[in-house]
Amino acid sequence: MLKFKTVVEYDGTNYHGWQFQPNAVTIQGEIEKALEKLFHTRIPVYGAGRTDSGVHAHGQVMHIVVSWNHPSENLKRALNTLLPDDICIKDVSEVRDDFHARHSAISKTYRYQIFNHRLRSPLKRLYSWQVSQKLDLDELQAASNILLGVHDFATFGTATSGTPSTTREIFEAKWHDGKGSPNLTFTISGSGFLRFMVRSLVGTLVRVGSCKISVQDFGAILESRDRSKSGPAAPSQGLSLVSVEYPK
Amino acid sequence: MLKFKTVVEYDGTNYHGWQFQPNAVTIQGEIEKALEKLFHTRIPVYGAGRTDSGVHAHGQVMHIVVSWNHPSENLKRALNTLLPDDICIKDVSEVRDDFHARHSAISKTYRYQIFNHRLRSPLKRLYSWQVSQKLDLDELQAASNILLGVHDFATFGTATSGTPSTTREIFEAKWHDGKGSPNLTFTISGSGFLRFMVRSLVGTLVRVGSCKISVQDFGAILESRDRSKSGPAAPSQGLSLVSVEYPK
Repeated sequence: MLKFKTVVEYDGTNYHGWQFQPNAVTIQGEIEKALEKLFHTRIPVYGAGRTDSGVHAHGQVMHIVVSWNHPSENLKRALNTLLPDDICIKDVSEVRDDFHARHSAISKTYRYQIFNHRLRSPLKRLYSWQVSQKLDLDELQAASNILLGVHDFATFGTATSGTPSTTREIFEAKWHDGKGSPNLTFTISGSGFLRFMVRSLVGTLVRVGSCKISVQDFGAILESRDRSKSGPAAPSQGLSLVSVEYPK
Repeated sequence: MLKFKTVVEYDGTNYHGWQFQPNAVTIQGEIEKALEKLFHTRIPVYGAGRTDSGVHAHGQVMHIVVSWNHPSENLKRALNTLLPDDICIKDVSEVRDDFHARHSAISKTYRYQIFNHRLRSPLKRLYSWQVSQKLDLDELQAASNILLGVHDFATFGTATSGTPSTTREIFEAKWHDGKGSPNLTFTISGSGFLRFMVRSLVGTLVRVGSCKISVQDFGAILESRDRSKSGPAAPSQGLSLVSVEYPK
């Protein structure tokens, strides 16, 4: 039996999130179905983390333990022929026995896309959040700088099962615009993320960017550790899990 | 009664093309449905041109003649609330009586997106064509340069109703890559386009880019005016009608 680390890209539009559910179509469920077809037995899939309903991934990571005597490239190809168009295995590589997609991860990077325009865009609707009010990029960035370092993020999410702490470290929180284009991108890397954390952060940051609250207010909201103080969560289709990082 | 020029963006994924069909969901059909709801009578829509099933538009143009006493901005807003998420009226402006979306057009610009990568991409699949063989951008551009100017394009498409000539003038035919990224973009502007012309051109150009035929072969194929010499049409989801140009 060999252990493989697997990188997965998916379009979350038509899925009830990553995590297997008996009565709903999920990414994990589809991958386990493909694995069962290939290996004629149930192969459990261990993801680096869950993504919510409608959230995408450029680089979700999972591990599997299987009996496979061919090159890992062939395993990738075999799985991709069995998977639907909106899920693709980008990379398969053999890893040591002690590798665990979730426990070994040292950081994760998410990206949130905003289409900052008064009109909705049919061609961007599946992968971004249309925000009508003009957002101030400097204000967005100033508030995001407060997130850097170690904080208790209880305002912005709920603890995931197994880890009651709501403290996480943020390494990067950066806004980009496409040279004056209405496409704003928020990239955030951290040691880990609470459930709903990125979307709640973005929902609250947009209140700063549209001058409804100040950067100082945002800092106070973070420090309050009061879930009810968070702005409404930004919608799922703007979010993508870009990558999961592991020690070299 | 006033005449309005209207710019429309749409995601063609779920439509049987632009043109109204009695038993299929089309963009024109949806817009006429919205107009009928708003005006309580059938309003005919005149498009600058048809787009095929699955083709997108960043800037299709149409005109309508309606009785409207409010600012044109309000007409835009009213229509957008009645249209589905994948169709959006981007602009409405009053025009002179002699304006015609199709007859007044002096050029059209199309864009074709290729994802040049060995693996399919779930997050790009709806708006690009994945081509596995590495394409040579210089070869693609050299062949495309042959298209500039006035040519008989009978190899690459069929005449549209009302205009039996297959001669068109091409003003621009330019390939871009995203600085070494696998995303290749082909932009082509011309006085007009035959049915299937852009997709047939791209399908044949890709044979040059993957070194199956030479730039000289491509020139000979264009000159042959023989429809059977064209490469297979590139798939519809990579194509978008970017804009339609009119005299100032």
